[in-house]
Amino acid sequence: MIDEYLDFARQLADAAAAAALPYFRTRLDVANKEPGAYDPVTVADKAAERAMRELIRARYPEHGIVGEEEDNHQGSSPYHWVLDPIDGTRSFICGLPLWGTLIALNDGKRPVVGAMYQPFTQEFYAGSPEGAWLNCEPLRTRPCAGLGTARLMTTGPDFFRMPAQRAAFDAIAADAQLVRYGADCYAYCLLAGGHIDAVIEAGLKPFDIQALIPIIEGAGGIVTTWDGGDAQHGGTIVACGDRALHAQLVDRLHSAA
Amino acid sequence: MIDEYLDFARQLADAAAAAALPYFRTRLDVANKEPGAYDPVTVADKAAERAMRELIRARYPEHGIVGEEEDNHQGSSPYHWVLDPIDGTRSFICGLPLWGTLIALNDGKRPVVGAMYQPFTQEFYAGSPEGAWLNCEPLRTRPCAGLGTARLMTTGPDFFRMPAQRAAFDAIAADAQLVRYGADCYAYCLLAGGHIDAVIEAGLKPFDIQALIPIIEGAGGIVTTWDGGDAQHGGTIVACGDRALHAQLVDRLHSAA
Repeated sequence: MIDEYLDFARQLADAAAAAALPYFRTRLDVANKEPGAYDPVTVADKAAERAMRELIRARYPEHGIVGEEEDNHQGSSPYHWVLDPIDGTRSFICGLPLWGTLIALNDGKRPVVGAMYQPFTQEFYAGSPEGAWLNCEPLRTRPCAGLGTARLMTTGPDFFRMPAQRAAFDAIAADAQLVRYGADCYAYCLLAGGHIDAVIEAGLKPFDIQALIPIIEGAGGIVTTWDGGDAQHGGTIVACGDRALHAQLVDRLHSAA
Repeated sequence: MIDEYLDFARQLADAAAAAALPYFRTRLDVANKEPGAYDPVTVADKAAERAMRELIRARYPEHGIVGEEEDNHQGSSPYHWVLDPIDGTRSFICGLPLWGTLIALNDGKRPVVGAMYQPFTQEFYAGSPEGAWLNCEPLRTRPCAGLGTARLMTTGPDFFRMPAQRAAFDAIAADAQLVRYGADCYAYCLLAGGHIDAVIEAGLKPFDIQALIPIIEGAGGIVTTWDGGDAQHGGTIVACGDRALHAQLVDRLHSAA
């Protein structure tokens, strides 16, 4: 079943891409004289989610659907799909190829299949209890000897709204080897690929993180809330490729969670 | 001659890509047990610059060469090539496809041909007095009614080393519609494509900016130092797609230049 769900996640990703990609790097000032009246990312978001919902209802009518753009659909099965058609709307708006379509299948207890698709670069990241892959190539996180050699990413310094969160992040960032901003879902996939060591964020919604959990875990990494709890409900998130680094970061973050 | 130089810049970009791309997203911990002994981005940088220098010496032996990695080569002609084999080394290290190979031809007075190549996404941006193009499609900056509707990019908040520079940037960022960090050369190309409105940076070297000037100007934009001076020598840089927005930003930045 897992392989069937992974194949289906790829179909969903392709449908979302077909709906959203025509709006990427469109010229608003050229397409429309009234910018306030037309928001390409919102149009793309809604169209991509609608395309995915239609496919799910046709193929798995018993499954539930939780999406960013429409109301939750309660299924007869505990299985439900968790969708974020365009994660990284700022990247989408600016023309950066770092946004992605997030697709998770949750069995009622946890996300068992996850996928992230970046259609401009044609990178399909997927994960399950059996592993994680980028376009069918296996992904593996890398070991990290400690924060001093760690590459760290987050959305942006201004996303930590609570002063204690910002202070905790800044202290960790000061000790890291390198800090990069602004990669959204793409950052977690780079972590799964062993290119960076940690992603620290706050204020995430369940649909921002569920698809990424099987990818990170399938690649050998770990993702939790800042106090070490279950990541699937969102909130404060810390993901690492190396378990010892994760324990160190939770130790420094948990009081600010 | 300009078309010949643009064609040649594409050949240089392909040679640099062939040298550098094999090192992108390599797994250091897999490839080498002694991380301190081996730095893939430096190896890629040097190999890419060497490949470009060899082609230039063979084709235009009278031209000078200014590169990031090797000593300047003084030619018999005022024409000289200005090379940055990998602009955005942090992106390269982290696996983000936002770095680029920068190639400019300066006629002794100013850069007349410029190119940026991102080989993972296969985006070749080029500019000359006759226009600017992404993979042969014309680029055009977009109009911007004012800072309140402007999308702004910079490398990162910590790149403004002088407090007055940081304060000037922060004040502008607070008034912008949206701020994104970390796109390096890619940000200027998104500006040329009409996706964002302004890039503000400080501490740039000549080889960080010369290749981008013909692209920005060829697309209808403007790029200067913060006090409105010639951008080709680097330093504090402000680029805009809209000339009125540029005048407003220079007005707010010049005292911190």
